[in-house]
Amino acid sequence: METMRAAVFKEVGKIVVEDRPIPQIASPEDAIVKVKLAGVCGSDLHWYRGHQKIPADFIPGHEFVGTVAAVGDGVKTVKPGDDVVTPFTTQCGECFYCKRQQTSRCEKSLLFGNRSHGIGIDGGQAEYVKVPFADTTLVLSPESVRPELLVLMSDIFPTGYFCASRYLKNMPRSEAEESVVVVVGCGPVGICAIAAALTWCPTVYAVDLVPERLAEAEKIGAKALLLDESVEATIKAATNGRGADVVLEVVGNHDAMQLSLAMVRPFGYISCVGVYLGNYTFSGPTLHAKNMTIAWGRCPVKGIFQESLDCLAKVQDKVGFLCDLHMPLEDASQAYEIFNQRKAHKIILDMP
Amino acid sequence: METMRAAVFKEVGKIVVEDRPIPQIASPEDAIVKVKLAGVCGSDLHWYRGHQKIPADFIPGHEFVGTVAAVGDGVKTVKPGDDVVTPFTTQCGECFYCKRQQTSRCEKSLLFGNRSHGIGIDGGQAEYVKVPFADTTLVLSPESVRPELLVLMSDIFPTGYFCASRYLKNMPRSEAEESVVVVVGCGPVGICAIAAALTWCPTVYAVDLVPERLAEAEKIGAKALLLDESVEATIKAATNGRGADVVLEVVGNHDAMQLSLAMVRPFGYISCVGVYLGNYTFSGPTLHAKNMTIAWGRCPVKGIFQESLDCLAKVQDKVGFLCDLHMPLEDASQAYEIFNQRKAHKIILDMP
Repeated sequence: METMRAAVFKEVGKIVVEDRPIPQIASPEDAIVKVKLAGVCGSDLHWYRGHQKIPADFIPGHEFVGTVAAVGDGVKTVKPGDDVVTPFTTQCGECFYCKRQQTSRCEKSLLFGNRSHGIGIDGGQAEYVKVPFADTTLVLSPESVRPELLVLMSDIFPTGYFCASRYLKNMPRSEAEESVVVVVGCGPVGICAIAAALTWCPTVYAVDLVPERLAEAEKIGAKALLLDESVEATIKAATNGRGADVVLEVVGNHDAMQLSLAMVRPFGYISCVGVYLGNYTFSGPTLHAKNMTIAWGRCPVKGIFQESLDCLAKVQDKVGFLCDLHMPLEDASQAYEIFNQRKAHKIILDMP
Repeated sequence: METMRAAVFKEVGKIVVEDRPIPQIASPEDAIVKVKLAGVCGSDLHWYRGHQKIPADFIPGHEFVGTVAAVGDGVKTVKPGDDVVTPFTTQCGECFYCKRQQTSRCEKSLLFGNRSHGIGIDGGQAEYVKVPFADTTLVLSPESVRPELLVLMSDIFPTGYFCASRYLKNMPRSEAEESVVVVVGCGPVGICAIAAALTWCPTVYAVDLVPERLAEAEKIGAKALLLDESVEATIKAATNGRGADVVLEVVGNHDAMQLSLAMVRPFGYISCVGVYLGNYTFSGPTLHAKNMTIAWGRCPVKGIFQESLDCLAKVQDKVGFLCDLHMPLEDASQAYEIFNQRKAHKIILDMP
């Protein structure tokens, strides 16, 4: 059996690179992709740190681009040699949710590079990866975005776009242009959310604890606010006492949500793509008095692929720096440790 | 000083009818309305039962219709003799929120028949009531709805309509027609929400603990579900295991919200107009996994007056029974006690 090199999650805090069998076509709808680039994502830290408890011994990586190496008999839309990008989940294309472009809740959805809830499959931090439902999962690499940035399309750019677009894209243009948006969290998804929000609204505030991240947010056009007790007052002062029209919560913890709620104006919106593993507590009278709307959830990458790609095409020069740090697959163990220590906001693994 | 008869809130559980001065024009924007009919509303029980602690000695009543008796010099849109209906709050018509039709958060909003937060003013359970901001608060009685039902337009019909319309009115028609809606709570606002929802969706389930209320919901076209442990399973079975597309939560308590969350499908919506005075607890992973959107808040009656009136015009024969029980103002004390004991779902007080 032919083997390949692959990063493997062994236990909390431990990634090793080892030989694994090259995956093979098992269903007519499968494709095998030879991976070029694979990202390490903030959500990988959930299991790497042990906050999300899942069985080990899988190949991580839900952000990857590459070239089709083989396809099953039923695959019609891609062929060997095609350059492709993939969302972080598969989707069947036929179920209730897929028909509504709510692909992140596809009834047969599989999640790359994870093993939670029995829906996880091996991911792309390896030389090869098997992609089930290839016709409705793989996307031919588009030309509108530079190839080295397309790995952003697997997860973080569409996720940031999704967070921003939920309440901005259908807002009347004049209202959007007058709106004040606050993005809580300036990690990679936050940067993508800021860049997307700025395509609709000129006034986007960015909140974070880390000055370096704020500097990046400022560089792409946000107004930077270091997280301290004055943040709420600053936003209120900037909005005649009302609060922000839309708050994008990309951190996923209770404090970030409570701050969002404090900052948003009555009849405003909070859009949350952060994954908070605990329980939220909300004051009933506050939610009523603020006529609050809050939306949570996972980005349907495939469902919004084209519109988020169109947005990335416009802002790629702003967010391209997220792909600057590359390391070889053989150094995946160090890459995860550097990432875990927040010494890099994104690391791209280059395949051999 | 001329006097009138008025219901007055004296202390928890105690309404008396007594002589009060007839209110006078105090600002050029005021109108004095001679009241014909005033409703007793479920939200009046918040202070009547002492759950909402507010200073006593005010005239209740935020649902009323009548005839203009006098207007201030600045009032241009109504004149003495005009029949009028009024939303349960005033609005200035000029502030940030009023310009956006988000009138329930008008910066100068006053609440009839209450004294909470210093924004309450005497209400309409009296022979006369003063209406500030008359031009932007009073509405000339429209002809599309029977006069004896117009008191529904002060609060409960627009509130039920608001709850239903938030996620149904902009849904593509074919999607709305295939949607499954669940209304939790079949009190008067629930009945209005059901009637409004049925104008978009043929499939509306109604959930309540009280068989008589369910019978009313069924009579107007809902599928009745007695609240027990099988409700969630019934909704799942009716939706191929998914859950309801939209849940309307009109009760305002924690159990009703948790049931709503259990019944709604991924990417579904919960619209809540119930006023819950405690703290909600929500599971972060559930909100994320369900791609949940929840909206809370008070109905902007003036902001949506015309569209909700148009809806009431269509469904008035269904919801008209809510105005069947009349009692004279002099019996207001007994009316509140009957209402408090849930022996009537709505009582209309007739003025002398």
